Amino acid sequence: MKDILRGNAVVGQSGGPTAAINATLTGVIKGALENECIETLYGMRNGIEGFMAERFVDLSALFADESEQNALIHTPAAALGSCRKKLPSPDSEKAEDIAVFERIFEVFERYSIKYFFYIGGNDSMDTVAKLSKYAARKGIADSVRIMGVPKTIDNDLAITDHAPGFGSAAKYVATTMNEIIRDCAVYTVKAVTIVEIMGRDAGWLTASAGVGAYIGADAPDLIYLPERSFDMNEFFASLRLAFDKHPNIVVAVSEGIRFADGRYVGEGTQSGAVDVFGHRYLAGTAKVLEQAVKAEFGCKVRSIELNLPQRCAAHLASATDLEESVAIGRAAVRAAANEGASGEMVYFKRLSSKPYACEIEHCSVLDVANYISALPDDYINAEGNYITEACADYILPLIKGEASPAYENGLPKYVKI
Amino acid sequence: MKDILRGNAVVGQSGGPTAAINATLTGVIKGALENECIETLYGMRNGIEGFMAERFVDLSALFADESEQNALIHTPAAALGSCRKKLPSPDSEKAEDIAVFERIFEVFERYSIKYFFYIGGNDSMDTVAKLSKYAARKGIADSVRIMGVPKTIDNDLAITDHAPGFGSAAKYVATTMNEIIRDCAVYTVKAVTIVEIMGRDAGWLTASAGVGAYIGADAPDLIYLPERSFDMNEFFASLRLAFDKHPNIVVAVSEGIRFADGRYVGEGTQSGAVDVFGHRYLAGTAKVLEQAVKAEFGCKVRSIELNLPQRCAAHLASATDLEESVAIGRAAVRAAANEGASGEMVYFKRLSSKPYACEIEHCSVLDVANYISALPDDYINAEGNYITEACADYILPLIKGEASPAYENGLPKYVKI
Repeated sequence: MKDILRGNAVVGQSGGPTAAINATLTGVIKGALENECIETLYGMRNGIEGFMAERFVDLSALFADESEQNALIHTPAAALGSCRKKLPSPDSEKAEDIAVFERIFEVFERYSIKYFFYIGGNDSMDTVAKLSKYAARKGIADSVRIMGVPKTIDNDLAITDHAPGFGSAAKYVATTMNEIIRDCAVYTVKAVTIVEIMGRDAGWLTASAGVGAYIGADAPDLIYLPERSFDMNEFFASLRLAFDKHPNIVVAVSEGIRFADGRYVGEGTQSGAVDVFGHRYLAGTAKVLEQAVKAEFGCKVRSIELNLPQRCAAHLASATDLEESVAIGRAAVRAAANEGASGEMVYFKRLSSKPYACEIEHCSVLDVANYISALPDDYINAEGNYITEACADYILPLIKGEASPAYENGLPKYVKI
Repeated sequence: MKDILRGNAVVGQSGGPTAAINATLTGVIKGALENECIETLYGMRNGIEGFMAERFVDLSALFADESEQNALIHTPAAALGSCRKKLPSPDSEKAEDIAVFERIFEVFERYSIKYFFYIGGNDSMDTVAKLSKYAARKGIADSVRIMGVPKTIDNDLAITDHAPGFGSAAKYVATTMNEIIRDCAVYTVKAVTIVEIMGRDAGWLTASAGVGAYIGADAPDLIYLPERSFDMNEFFASLRLAFDKHPNIVVAVSEGIRFADGRYVGEGTQSGAVDVFGHRYLAGTAKVLEQAVKAEFGCKVRSIELNLPQRCAAHLASATDLEESVAIGRAAVRAAANEGASGEMVYFKRLSSKPYACEIEHCSVLDVANYISALPDDYINAEGNYITEACADYILPLIKGEASPAYENGLPKYVKI
């Protein structure tokens, strides 16, 4: 049992937006308000960048009221702003790198910050790991507690059963796919519609397109995931088989599918640009396939990129996802304040799918940072072009329940910080 | 007052899907069930094509139950299927053209059809007009009543204040725009996001992107409509002004914007393909602008095509739109059966915007077919890059209220016929 640590706390959001990342923020706020070890909870604007620039807001004051908290839960995209800053290695001996960490811990001290909560995905857990390591080397590990709180629509974080934000994105994808299939089914002419879904390295979100197939709803004819290499001739052969059944084929493809030689299918239309974490920018996978299918079959072909709405459509968030996101934010505060956890990430452990039951635990952030969790083999069919029932059983509990944002003048009412 | 006409009725859906076209179908079903002049209401599959092939379903039997009707109201895209068949001129003396009309009226007789309801947009009203004209020339105008019921997300039909289906599409666009703007606002780097919205000849749907600006919600920085010619240099100048205010610019553009010389902005990426009505296929307007802005500003630029979801997202339908869509379908039956209307279209006449009040009337379909209703001048600002408050006042009542489709296993439950 660690000592009780009293002082201020700070929370930040990092990486790509989700429809549930503010629900997690609300959970941290609730946790801080109800925990007597924490005096003021600051919010850092634009993640670690804003932290270094002392761009803080007083969340304890702004969200003392439960009705304000409820509005925040339903607001999409990081209300505190985000960043994609990558911290240098804490082992670096370069003066400019050391200066970054010194600046960060100077701010810790100036604001009497004892608790640091960082809501984000893989890259954010990397930040948590580096700050923890630096604090340990400086011998101040006992006076600050640094916690990661997961978030990613990609669902590709290690250890956790699923990531907050994924359920809402999955619900958006599965619902929109149902609606697109209805739309495509109205004509009798032979046509192929290719829907591109986010997910660079793991096919979780694309897999969600197929859950309808196991519950009597509409689902695409074919699903292509980054976990299997993509072969154009096999794709054409599968389309021919699908045309034997009906004239309107709908295909779900992950933006991250690659040929056997490792080239991204969407690479054709992209420059080789990479972001600060070295990830390649991808777009246009469906567009490339559209051209290929048009050339091969000569029929009507349409490509649809679900694009940003799949990660920010809070109006269609999963109630389960929002509830769990609040719970995990709250649990992060409890783990740090009551159990002395630091350098750790809170995560979901699934106890059962039918009925669905999950509990929240925490683990070393080192077990999470920079690992990718992809679809297991038994979630993908033998042909590599569809999900299995086991996969649907995994996803379905996460999309259950409908969020109920407040509406005003016909539009959802979202809050700003 | 016309004679009472007893017999069977038939209803069809044509043109592009909407989230409310089945609500209108449900209105026709309700109208037929409650009107004693009508014995059986048939549904023709795939519009006039299915009519000629006698591909009928008995809607009176299938939807006798109100709970089935309610499920149909919330189901997107034409449940009976659609077509894009253009009828020949009823004045044509070509044998193959005369055969089309003879076949159609043979089916009328075989099924004792006295009432023909056709739900669709401009091209469908063209079909209603031609059938009416042919019936008049054949001297059978007294024994069949042919009615058009409007539908189009484009809202470009003449006479009617607005078209069923537009309100739901507008609500989707305005809501999604709000969410996209939240998403884009999380980073601090200079970026432009260009959102492409449907609407070939009229900017109604693109205009809906801007309503948030007048009710304290988020709205794009700039809006480009097909009613004004597009100038790339003026666009760049407007972007520069917008960057003075904030780093994240969001622009809404209609797929149908053109340069002063009449060329579509999106034409660059398109072949000159046209559909059977001679409409040019458009896509890629945002993509073309993305490249141009990237070249000019060198900043991050993203293009988003809202694509099919804007016309089939029934989960986000406007409650006002669905109610009105049911009402106008019902009114079409009453107009034909009780008032003897034929060769006419039912339409909305707005009595007031604040408070919103509308009534349903009917007019000759000849006043509607093949006319385009575009945004009036006072709905567009002087610079031609935004909507005015008058435009927002027009649109806002139409997006009011949230539809409540039934959900099962986390997905909306849609019906199939």
